[in-house]
Amino acid sequence: MVNETQHTCSASSSSRSDGGSSSGSESSKDSSRCSTPVLDADRHERLREKMRRRQDAGDKWFSLEFFPPRTANAAVNLISRFDRMGAGGPLFIDVTWHPAGDPGSDKETSSMIIANTAVNYCGLETILHMTCCNQTKDDITGHLQKAKRLGLKNIMALRGDPAGEEWEEEVDGFNYAVDLVKHIRNEFDDYFDICVAGYPKGHPEAESYEADLRHLKEKVFAGADFIITQLFFQPETFLKFMKDCQAIGITCPIIPGIFPIQGYHSLRQLVKLSKLEVPQEIKDVIEPIKDNDAAIRNYGVELAVSMCRELLDSGMVHGLHFYTLNREVATTEVLKRLGIWKEDPRRPLPWAVSAHPKRRVEDVRPIFWASRPKSYIYRTQEWDDFPNGRWGNSSSPAFGELKDYYLFYLKSKSPREELLKMWGEELTSEESVFEVFTCYITGEPNRNGYKVTCMPWNDDPLATETNLLKDQLEKVNRRGILTINSQPNINGKPSTDPIVGWGPSGGYVFQKAYLEFFTSSEIVTALLKVLKKYELRVNYHIVNVKGQNITNAPDLQPNAVTWGIFPGREIIQPTVVDPVSFLSWKDEAFALWIEQWAKLYEEESPSRMIIQYIHDNYYLVNLVDNDFPLENCLWQVVEDTFELLN
Amino acid sequence: MVNETQHTCSASSSSRSDGGSSSGSESSKDSSRCSTPVLDADRHERLREKMRRRQDAGDKWFSLEFFPPRTANAAVNLISRFDRMGAGGPLFIDVTWHPAGDPGSDKETSSMIIANTAVNYCGLETILHMTCCNQTKDDITGHLQKAKRLGLKNIMALRGDPAGEEWEEEVDGFNYAVDLVKHIRNEFDDYFDICVAGYPKGHPEAESYEADLRHLKEKVFAGADFIITQLFFQPETFLKFMKDCQAIGITCPIIPGIFPIQGYHSLRQLVKLSKLEVPQEIKDVIEPIKDNDAAIRNYGVELAVSMCRELLDSGMVHGLHFYTLNREVATTEVLKRLGIWKEDPRRPLPWAVSAHPKRRVEDVRPIFWASRPKSYIYRTQEWDDFPNGRWGNSSSPAFGELKDYYLFYLKSKSPREELLKMWGEELTSEESVFEVFTCYITGEPNRNGYKVTCMPWNDDPLATETNLLKDQLEKVNRRGILTINSQPNINGKPSTDPIVGWGPSGGYVFQKAYLEFFTSSEIVTALLKVLKKYELRVNYHIVNVKGQNITNAPDLQPNAVTWGIFPGREIIQPTVVDPVSFLSWKDEAFALWIEQWAKLYEEESPSRMIIQYIHDNYYLVNLVDNDFPLENCLWQVVEDTFELLN
Repeated sequence: MVNETQHTCSASSSSRSDGGSSSGSESSKDSSRCSTPVLDADRHERLREKMRRRQDAGDKWFSLEFFPPRTANAAVNLISRFDRMGAGGPLFIDVTWHPAGDPGSDKETSSMIIANTAVNYCGLETILHMTCCNQTKDDITGHLQKAKRLGLKNIMALRGDPAGEEWEEEVDGFNYAVDLVKHIRNEFDDYFDICVAGYPKGHPEAESYEADLRHLKEKVFAGADFIITQLFFQPETFLKFMKDCQAIGITCPIIPGIFPIQGYHSLRQLVKLSKLEVPQEIKDVIEPIKDNDAAIRNYGVELAVSMCRELLDSGMVHGLHFYTLNREVATTEVLKRLGIWKEDPRRPLPWAVSAHPKRRVEDVRPIFWASRPKSYIYRTQEWDDFPNGRWGNSSSPAFGELKDYYLFYLKSKSPREELLKMWGEELTSEESVFEVFTCYITGEPNRNGYKVTCMPWNDDPLATETNLLKDQLEKVNRRGILTINSQPNINGKPSTDPIVGWGPSGGYVFQKAYLEFFTSSEIVTALLKVLKKYELRVNYHIVNVKGQNITNAPDLQPNAVTWGIFPGREIIQPTVVDPVSFLSWKDEAFALWIEQWAKLYEEESPSRMIIQYIHDNYYLVNLVDNDFPLENCLWQVVEDTFELLN
Repeated sequence: MVNETQHTCSASSSSRSDGGSSSGSESSKDSSRCSTPVLDADRHERLREKMRRRQDAGDKWFSLEFFPPRTANAAVNLISRFDRMGAGGPLFIDVTWHPAGDPGSDKETSSMIIANTAVNYCGLETILHMTCCNQTKDDITGHLQKAKRLGLKNIMALRGDPAGEEWEEEVDGFNYAVDLVKHIRNEFDDYFDICVAGYPKGHPEAESYEADLRHLKEKVFAGADFIITQLFFQPETFLKFMKDCQAIGITCPIIPGIFPIQGYHSLRQLVKLSKLEVPQEIKDVIEPIKDNDAAIRNYGVELAVSMCRELLDSGMVHGLHFYTLNREVATTEVLKRLGIWKEDPRRPLPWAVSAHPKRRVEDVRPIFWASRPKSYIYRTQEWDDFPNGRWGNSSSPAFGELKDYYLFYLKSKSPREELLKMWGEELTSEESVFEVFTCYITGEPNRNGYKVTCMPWNDDPLATETNLLKDQLEKVNRRGILTINSQPNINGKPSTDPIVGWGPSGGYVFQKAYLEFFTSSEIVTALLKVLKKYELRVNYHIVNVKGQNITNAPDLQPNAVTWGIFPGREIIQPTVVDPVSFLSWKDEAFALWIEQWAKLYEEESPSRMIIQYIHDNYYLVNLVDNDFPLENCLWQVVEDTFELLN
């Protein structure tokens, strides 16, 4: 009897019917199981599944449309905008395709590369637009292959505007979006989620509204997963369109495209391009205030909010798609007023995740890149596997070299002149460098009255969490312990804690105290003497630019410094101090002195020589206090070191 | 500069020479790293390395010699002795080879199988003796291959006693131990650690003491790693021998064989076999008390203690090898008085580890087999990989069937008559079964005056840890929640805690509260209603013998219920509630009702039918309280269930 396998999931005895088991699920020995603890279902679903799950759960969601920028500087700004607007929790963003702008190229302003950045570096679910008109099959296949290689998973299949005035269909060519949909399904099977465009008033070139609906149905039946509509000005327009679609058998999600009016000229331009009529009542409001941008924007926000409310209240609409025009204020305002902008974004993990499918299983990273996640992603982009459990399991992964400081998602958001104001037009001594670090920590203006809002190792102001350590950090930076990374110890705070929480609710998060800094060899000498007293409690790695490395890490094993305990899960330990990758990080950390700071100054200038001296002679130190339930002893370690020096 | 790899470990600047770094080790990017967090170096070292490390650290150690038993019952007792004496912390045990007893066979009393059990089921580093005289090369190779397959890693290479009186060398045969040493090295390269025998007074058959030393040197130079000596009666004998060995260039460890005199007859027998002379001063003491076993044993302990002290004090001896004669008292007493018996054995992991090399990386097990580790090891013996990180990583491992309840390391230590006294000669109702469970928990005698010291699911008295829950367990068992496994919640106790601690010192251990029990479907029905209130807090699995399974485990993921945080390490999570293996466990847990309990009674007897009824109708339930920092809510869950029933 023991060894008969009776694991069938048959309906069960009294206990099930009486006790109720709506929340219980049946299982058997044969059931599949996940290879890694799934903390965040989102990372494992494709877009159409997410959409379906949100709809089933009755959640309202939004998405954001952007176009590729014209210049590299605009790209830097757009990526920052992705990060900021991504925090509001869009279900996806999409990037338009500009045939004139070499959209499939490797240029940093191409549609392809902007979408790549959104997915890989900003962790955003992203749809790449693609048009097919006037393109060869090979070109299109090439673009799609490249998109797949870069980790893009969603395509908006469009016809695009014909090149000439008088357009003629090509035999066997891509004449309509439906041809592109079919091509994608033929060549890439079910790999991509496909979106197509819907025209609530009918496509301007269609024979009729009804004919256009039939074309839309063809696109859906050819394999499209959902529809995003062209903009419209009145909710009835959309609701009628939706009913008409359903009436002819279109059952996939249809997402209304919302265009918050943001200015007189942008409205006129858009209307011209889309061949839409602006309703008279809107014209009547706008014309009199056409030179008052703020007034028009306010009106646009009002109008959009009221239209969105009506759509959502209809019960037919679950998601809203915003034409942002690459602007932030109006869309954010509308979303906040609708109450669907996430005010308190929950972090699935303590670091910024990437949305590349191959990184789905990534659940541990070294702490060193905490402030430079894009650099970490860049340097590990060639990895096939991601340490998905214990860091040490991966066989000594090789980090890519970091030479490309000019890459728009790696370079500083601030221009040279601003950096000089923050970090000093002229440095006179190592102490003037200490001052820059100290001002960054305190938020106080420097001696020339400028606030230091970024550093070579951190392009953003101090994290909220680091603020918990502010007073101590200020004290030690003043004296030449130049901190670039730190975290407080945490002994079991709820996973919903607004500052240190991450992961699903109901869990507990933990941290070991961490401190990383540059400092002189004189201080290191004293520090090493002090560390003897803390031998069992504090783990350290101390390395200079030449790679001379002093550590007490046992067997070069990684030390988990952030972990979480969740209901019904295995332990998640997303952040480690890994001795091996620390040596790759130190290359980058030392190089940033030169690449970002020294190079602001003339060669041979005293300022540059000071930074060069620090680069050549200082040590990079990291310290972990293993006794996370006790008070952080790292400040005492530093205090003892200064005492020994005096 | 950034990307030049200067990771050489050259001697460093002032900070190293001044700051001192005796405790710091240098490292480079190229350094190897371990694939799993090494908590316990012991598990990853071979015997000669352990010996070397203990010697370098100045630790004194001991080892224990046993011979294979004659009967299956004696084997059961010997295995229990392995477990008890293993707790004292021997560096290794060894099992002698009895050519007359079919030593390489699969019989449960063979040398091979006893050594196999010691390694795989008791987790002891073990040396298997092997003799070569009068055996073919193929036989010997076969034995060695089998030993390797079973996970044995150490061989004591001996000549053995010639069969006849007049022994002649065989050409090309195995005439001396050195031939066996050479054969092992030829055929198995460096796989085995090899031990050889040394004779402090010279081998009785050797031409001379000097000639015997030369033979010993040959054995060492042929590839032996260390030497264990024949017994001797005076410390000077060993110390002289050791100096003589060193003088002719034998540098490997030499371990003195200690024989605590335990009785007049065993001494006489041993002396006869080994052809040794008992010194007159010992004879003078023993002869007058030869009929007083206790007096002789006391004298033997005294003598051994004083001799061992002298050996250890010489500074030349680091380990002591004890000829136990399969007895416990005298050797344990000597070791305790020497202070090298581990009084507080630290557990490397919360469960009993196996010493098979392929299980070296094993660091997680389901909690279900907590009281039946030998069964778990048996049922997973065919696995090639052991979940060495996240349990879920292993692809649905298949558990071996458990049919072999008769196996000497799986069957109860108590004979049928004792079990009947404990569990009832005659059962009258389900309630009389509840009583047995309750008596096991409380330690009170049952209605016939017998203490219940074991249960089908647990062959030992209640664990110290379970004692923490005693009062609550008693209460619920009385009412038909028949508990078979439980642990309290622990929120960060030191890893050195005598009750719940495990792993190296300096760490913190954690547990989620766990409760596992059999109960009626009536109680399950009420329980399921109650569990709705605890939906996010309590995970449950409820299954009956037919495999009908009700659970709220998300995605069938395992739930970590024991974990530890250690200095400089990744998180260790050695115990999980794994939904998939629970279904294999339930087969075993239900079968134990029948195999161990029902079968004590006649077929068709009322007692047997009561157990059969429980087996057929009860559910096996496990509950985890995920909120480990709060007070364990599982008692409240049970309380609520009883309330609902009333």
